Amino acid sequence: MTPVRIALAQINPVVGDIKGNLAIIKAVLAESQSSGADLVVFPELAITGYPPEDLLLKSDFVDANLRALKSLANSVRQCSAVVGFVDEQGGELYNAAAIIDEGEVKAVYHKHLLPNYGVFDEERYFEPGQGIILAKMGDLVFGVTVCEDLWWEHGPSAECASAGAELIVNINASPFHMGKGKQRQELLSARARANDVSYAYVNAVGGQDELVFDGGSCFVTRNGDVVARAGQFVADTLLFDLEPTGPPKVRTTTQEGLKVVNLAGPLDDGRAGIVHAVAPELSPEEEAYRALVLGVRDYLDKNGFKQALIGLSGGIDSALTACIAVEAIGAENVLGVCNPSGFTSGRSVDDAAKLASNLGIDMEVIAIAPIFEAMLTSLRPLFGDSAFGIAEENLQARIRGMLWMAISNKFGRIVLSTGNKSEMAVGYATLYGDMAGGFAVLKDVPKTLVYRIADLVNRDTELIPSSIIERPPTAELRPDQLDTDSLPPYDVLDPILQAYVEDDLSIDKIVAQGFDHEVVCRVVGMVDSAEYKRRQAPPGIKITDRAFGRDRRLPITNRYRPYL
Amino acid sequence: MTPVRIALAQINPVVGDIKGNLAIIKAVLAESQSSGADLVVFPELAITGYPPEDLLLKSDFVDANLRALKSLANSVRQCSAVVGFVDEQGGELYNAAAIIDEGEVKAVYHKHLLPNYGVFDEERYFEPGQGIILAKMGDLVFGVTVCEDLWWEHGPSAECASAGAELIVNINASPFHMGKGKQRQELLSARARANDVSYAYVNAVGGQDELVFDGGSCFVTRNGDVVARAGQFVADTLLFDLEPTGPPKVRTTTQEGLKVVNLAGPLDDGRAGIVHAVAPELSPEEEAYRALVLGVRDYLDKNGFKQALIGLSGGIDSALTACIAVEAIGAENVLGVCNPSGFTSGRSVDDAAKLASNLGIDMEVIAIAPIFEAMLTSLRPLFGDSAFGIAEENLQARIRGMLWMAISNKFGRIVLSTGNKSEMAVGYATLYGDMAGGFAVLKDVPKTLVYRIADLVNRDTELIPSSIIERPPTAELRPDQLDTDSLPPYDVLDPILQAYVEDDLSIDKIVAQGFDHEVVCRVVGMVDSAEYKRRQAPPGIKITDRAFGRDRRLPITNRYRPYL
Repeated sequence: MTPVRIALAQINPVVGDIKGNLAIIKAVLAESQSSGADLVVFPELAITGYPPEDLLLKSDFVDANLRALKSLANSVRQCSAVVGFVDEQGGELYNAAAIIDEGEVKAVYHKHLLPNYGVFDEERYFEPGQGIILAKMGDLVFGVTVCEDLWWEHGPSAECASAGAELIVNINASPFHMGKGKQRQELLSARARANDVSYAYVNAVGGQDELVFDGGSCFVTRNGDVVARAGQFVADTLLFDLEPTGPPKVRTTTQEGLKVVNLAGPLDDGRAGIVHAVAPELSPEEEAYRALVLGVRDYLDKNGFKQALIGLSGGIDSALTACIAVEAIGAENVLGVCNPSGFTSGRSVDDAAKLASNLGIDMEVIAIAPIFEAMLTSLRPLFGDSAFGIAEENLQARIRGMLWMAISNKFGRIVLSTGNKSEMAVGYATLYGDMAGGFAVLKDVPKTLVYRIADLVNRDTELIPSSIIERPPTAELRPDQLDTDSLPPYDVLDPILQAYVEDDLSIDKIVAQGFDHEVVCRVVGMVDSAEYKRRQAPPGIKITDRAFGRDRRLPITNRYRPYL
Repeated sequence: MTPVRIALAQINPVVGDIKGNLAIIKAVLAESQSSGADLVVFPELAITGYPPEDLLLKSDFVDANLRALKSLANSVRQCSAVVGFVDEQGGELYNAAAIIDEGEVKAVYHKHLLPNYGVFDEERYFEPGQGIILAKMGDLVFGVTVCEDLWWEHGPSAECASAGAELIVNINASPFHMGKGKQRQELLSARARANDVSYAYVNAVGGQDELVFDGGSCFVTRNGDVVARAGQFVADTLLFDLEPTGPPKVRTTTQEGLKVVNLAGPLDDGRAGIVHAVAPELSPEEEAYRALVLGVRDYLDKNGFKQALIGLSGGIDSALTACIAVEAIGAENVLGVCNPSGFTSGRSVDDAAKLASNLGIDMEVIAIAPIFEAMLTSLRPLFGDSAFGIAEENLQARIRGMLWMAISNKFGRIVLSTGNKSEMAVGYATLYGDMAGGFAVLKDVPKTLVYRIADLVNRDTELIPSSIIERPPTAELRPDQLDTDSLPPYDVLDPILQAYVEDDLSIDKIVAQGFDHEVVCRVVGMVDSAEYKRRQAPPGIKITDRAFGRDRRLPITNRYRPYL
């Protein structure tokens, strides 16, 4: 049997950039053709980027996407292609895959299963598709499905397989969270064995607001073995040669709504064989770190920022944020700003300076005491002799935020805020203060994971001074303040937060995991009360199973407080 | 035929407050019984409040709601009731209506049509129901449906009618936007005539985060006439007596999935008849004003705030915000804070003082110049001799925001921010500056509507000084600044925004409405570029067909810029 050479084009589209995405697709198509590809497969909604959200409600946007598909089809002449786009039929929209060959769209598959949970809102926009498509290229028969279609046992993959497909091409824009790579691989292997088909899985790569798509496109045999895999977090084109097992057997009679298309190819010009690369699996910390770097790089790049500014406190969160920013956009583009107050220890400023020096970034020091004094003077007629409290603590954090924003406005640098998920969860952060910024790098990284990623960053060289890693966390907004004055230790706090925020467990069930009832109630109460703050937080990169933001949609006005 | 007395209980539940909502329901039930009601009808999800959002993912929350239903059922002994709750069957959730009688839940209807557009995400949580229910009370046969079921022609109302119902009880939590009352009334009349049934429509009332439920519960005859209507924006119980037209004819054979339940009643103890009140229709400005007042009152009350603080600039937006706050929580609970800069005219401070005096609220004046000077001094090493620009303008706005937040933190007053929808749309607002606050009262009120509502407020007495209404809008952040330096006049801007933001029209179609191409492109570009600011804005009250927030979900990273 003549083998079919398939290219999985793991590209990084930009939402809304129809022209730019089309240019990327055409370039990768040309490159894959010159590598002898018979079939080039692009991700889900590759033409519009994913998720386009309410851009889909604009008919001019949908029309522009359809024109781009036409232009693309016209350029597909030497091979075949599968590409994700938004289809429109009778006024309804479909999350669709076009099968293109000889300059024409030969068939269009509409995604059957529309995710409408977690970060997904596909039922807001799309109608579910019906019917399946088999494509024949030489002796190879393959079915085409889109993302979620893969995740359900009795989805269209099984229908394709029972109709005679020996390969399922599954196109994706599958957002990353830690462990997703492994979960996806296990799923693909299980589906391959259950349906007795091989899978060509292509995923997008890149950051889009709070989401990161991690790539990891791969080819899985009908035995469930991964024989080729692209790296995670990088654009790449993965090639492999698939030799059909025998003459095609399409059982058209068994399926309603089955369409069969014949494609030209495969080309058999005595091409050299391909060594199939299998990119290594990454550790959870490595996965998270790379997701954060890519998320920052793409958020800045896709929104037109070249330079960033980070408030360096001498603490671990801002240190790790700076490391990620340096990796993402280069040390020359990162500015540290250190704003000591009267409560800031000399050690903090020294540690921040050491970090900046290790990273090779510039650092400015602007003390906030004179501004704080001016604020207190202006407020004295109202505040009188009231005790130093939250108002004064927050003022200091807000003066810092204001200084960063002023520098941002003056020089066009985006402010990267540094708060972690544990703080976001319990509201241990000042709105318009340390929460100020354009992008919140560690928003979905629990504090205990911050330390683990810091260890990874320091694996070869001590980039983050050990003094920063070793000192007890403190906000330094009042004398001798420690995080543990207000919060349980992070190794107690984080598992409680995981149970409540990510796993939606009741208080009783969390206590049954071995935590103190009073502590659990206090933590849960803090999480519930901080919803209003989170609503005004900058976007940040989702790396867990459930991030704050579109992934967890709770009302601010919410009197469900079973712990009171 | 013995008439059936029906009470439409237009209550104001609080999301998550299952105990509190149950107490309200029981109290209204008792009161309605003592008015001789045979059937008391409560709104959609009355037990949980609407929308509970991701609280629905917590099984302990769903369980608590089921226990509350059981407790309620146990107390329904002298009449029957229909109440909205969350049902669970086989691990799936349903937006449900319980029909309660003689201490038991006699039947449960599951909403068929689940809205998943605009502000709604019901498919995220619920499965669609199947089958209909008819209830017989004496000679009256009625069907029960939930909210969206009413809005589609071939929905379950038609099924109920064709199976023999002469009344449809439709329970709602239907969010307000201007014109919704009229739209709803026309729809009910059309459905009543088409299905030849009367409608008992009950809607919730109250504010929930960005939504306001406006009530307006009503009874519509099979001729489409509104014979009783509760007021909008107030909790109320509307009673009416319905005399069945003849012996019941239930055509059980015509319908699959039809369940019929027999209810006790009607009670016929020679009660006095009822004069059916028909609350008057409100003008659009009056509707908007009352929605804003209720939205503010409930956001504060339901989140535990008694007092508010408003930055008074001497402009129309802060003036109207203050009027609304005074109406919502009383003058004694509202504090004005005026923060003149070096660019603030004496007229502004005088106008703010005049307004405060007219409203009877306290006003503090804190000049920002000393703090601004301290900030500039601290930034001089970085800023050098750079020209006065956006950074300096924003600094002034942010110093104000910081002062308000400090007073808020010290005294527990919520900051009500004052920006209008036109500013939110084009980003003519400073993040962490004038955008700072807990609730953005005018966030969905276009500037031209701000003036119309101000005229309404001033109808009887000049609460808002005419000097404020007459002066050209200015941010006073640099010498002689006017809004029109940066923006088209508001009577040009607002219709362009309506076309782009609310109607999703393309640039060509907006230009075809008679606007200048260059102006349209500039405005649309500003709207697209300000998405990141809106993402960090406080919540505010939806009063238009499409508000910013959950109603309009656009990516920040978005390169769809067909005007470039």
